Amino acid sequence: MFAQKLRKTETTKPADVSPVEKLVALLREDMRTADALIHARLGSAVALIPDLAKHLVDSGGKRLRPLLTLAAARMGGYAGGHHVHLAAAVEFIHTATLLHDDVVDGSSLRRGKVSANLVWGNKPSILVGDFLLSRAFRLMVEAGRVDVLDVLATASGIIAEGEVMQLKSVNDVATSEDHYLSVVHAKTAALFAAAAEAGAMLANVSPAYEEAMRVYGDNLGMAFQLVDDALDYSGRQAMMGKAVGDDFREGKVTLPVILAVARADKDEKKFWTRVIQTGSKSERDLDRAITLVEQTGAISDTMTRARAYADTAQNALPEGTSEIREALSGIADFCVERAY
Amino acid sequence: MFAQKLRKTETTKPADVSPVEKLVALLREDMRTADALIHARLGSAVALIPDLAKHLVDSGGKRLRPLLTLAAARMGGYAGGHHVHLAAAVEFIHTATLLHDDVVDGSSLRRGKVSANLVWGNKPSILVGDFLLSRAFRLMVEAGRVDVLDVLATASGIIAEGEVMQLKSVNDVATSEDHYLSVVHAKTAALFAAAAEAGAMLANVSPAYEEAMRVYGDNLGMAFQLVDDALDYSGRQAMMGKAVGDDFREGKVTLPVILAVARADKDEKKFWTRVIQTGSKSERDLDRAITLVEQTGAISDTMTRARAYADTAQNALPEGTSEIREALSGIADFCVERAY
Repeated sequence: MFAQKLRKTETTKPADVSPVEKLVALLREDMRTADALIHARLGSAVALIPDLAKHLVDSGGKRLRPLLTLAAARMGGYAGGHHVHLAAAVEFIHTATLLHDDVVDGSSLRRGKVSANLVWGNKPSILVGDFLLSRAFRLMVEAGRVDVLDVLATASGIIAEGEVMQLKSVNDVATSEDHYLSVVHAKTAALFAAAAEAGAMLANVSPAYEEAMRVYGDNLGMAFQLVDDALDYSGRQAMMGKAVGDDFREGKVTLPVILAVARADKDEKKFWTRVIQTGSKSERDLDRAITLVEQTGAISDTMTRARAYADTAQNALPEGTSEIREALSGIADFCVERAY
Repeated sequence: MFAQKLRKTETTKPADVSPVEKLVALLREDMRTADALIHARLGSAVALIPDLAKHLVDSGGKRLRPLLTLAAARMGGYAGGHHVHLAAAVEFIHTATLLHDDVVDGSSLRRGKVSANLVWGNKPSILVGDFLLSRAFRLMVEAGRVDVLDVLATASGIIAEGEVMQLKSVNDVATSEDHYLSVVHAKTAALFAAAAEAGAMLANVSPAYEEAMRVYGDNLGMAFQLVDDALDYSGRQAMMGKAVGDDFREGKVTLPVILAVARADKDEKKFWTRVIQTGSKSERDLDRAITLVEQTGAISDTMTRARAYADTAQNALPEGTSEIREALSGIADFCVERAY
């Protein structure tokens, strides 16, 4: 199924324009307005706040989540101007999460740049995250729909729950697939789902349409995170400006590791137990981990799972033939293909 | 004026019931409902979250901020049931701030208990703070007033700005009074002001009444923080379950220090410069700092300023003779008197 999908996509779109770029082009004006709003609303008389926030906001993120909000609103027939407020709010929630994540993980690199916590320290990163979260809610107030605000506030709480759950599984070689999937659902898919649902809600679509967009976002988020976790053990990652082996070094137990551990022989089990449970890991250990996740088929199986989530996302999309719909479907493919 | 006020208050209320307790008694049912709501809404399937949140929520805080919201709503004639949602939201914003503050400050003690960051670590404290902030906004959604939500979201952003500003003045012996007052305004008074204003707004009072409650809360918050900062150099602090000298050890430059530095002779200036700018401080240094803030009149002048803010708070209260109004006025006195 996986290879088949890849082939299908390759024949239906020009090879040099990604579906994300295609969607950005379709929503160019909206994206421009949302971007201007993002920059306007991270302003503060306390200069450190916009300095730090811009470091992350302008670091070349794809703005995938706000793009979902704008696309869902327009595809649903929304003709007003408040979808950009929701899109900016979604990006602020995401940025706040990244700032706090990097503190929690002790990260040093984010989108190929030195992470904010390393430039300014953990304290400002925590506080600027709080600031952006507050600004996100003010943007939602401007959008004027309290039911949409509730959807995004709920997602924001679920993200925090997911991050706490993830802490529990760090350094735990016995982490189950089920626990892992719950974490991914909460820490990543919840915001993708809410971003798409929020846009649809603003367009006053039918409950079934709204639910379809939520399911699309949810499954796209799952696919996105699984691919991310596979890439962390892949050479391609280095080309994307991210350090390879971050999860490994931080003792995060992701699906590639869970599958590799389940298939490990006695000697390999000893290896995984040591490198996951203890802090002492060498670059040679990382090399062996990469070899093992490849050899056991853990990476390709993680990708197959990601592909299945991407399929579900595509199938969930409401009926129709619009260019936006096509691009959203293409993004689900792209999300998996970027790993190759 | 200060001594006069103290005398006046002593003659008009029984010595054994504080105005806070009096207000709690007047709003007993509301406080009970708000408290139940607070406990219900910090629930999560991720057990660590309620465990950590309860540690702080049940640690004997006075619930002064939610009390302001309830009082303002009832005094304004509100007869509905949504003021408890706002009160719970206000307490959650405050709790989230404390959790993040304790991480930022590296605190070890909060309300006489070991602080959450020391029990569970910094990471869960950051994430549970985020969780509570999200829950606060969901509570505000339930209250159904988007304009009130905006007032509280704005306050939440200002608190973060204040905390960032405060970071800038840490270890800076040249911190100005003006900078200090701006920090206190943002990190403390903004939430007191919003808590009181939010309750009044729910009661649909006149703009002048709403503004009066905002000004009351704002000035009460200023008085409250100035007294807190004076207490940090006072023996009475130890009786209240707080460590004395926390600000001193963390290099925080508060009004007692700013005033003492302004009045220091050459030798004392050298002392202050050393202990504020460098990390090397001994308990003997703290003893000398306490002696200096006392001898130079910095403590009593800080208290005089606090008294002036308390007066402004009292004078701002809307005309009337209700028991709630009397208790709110008494709280402004109490806020200053607790230092004696």
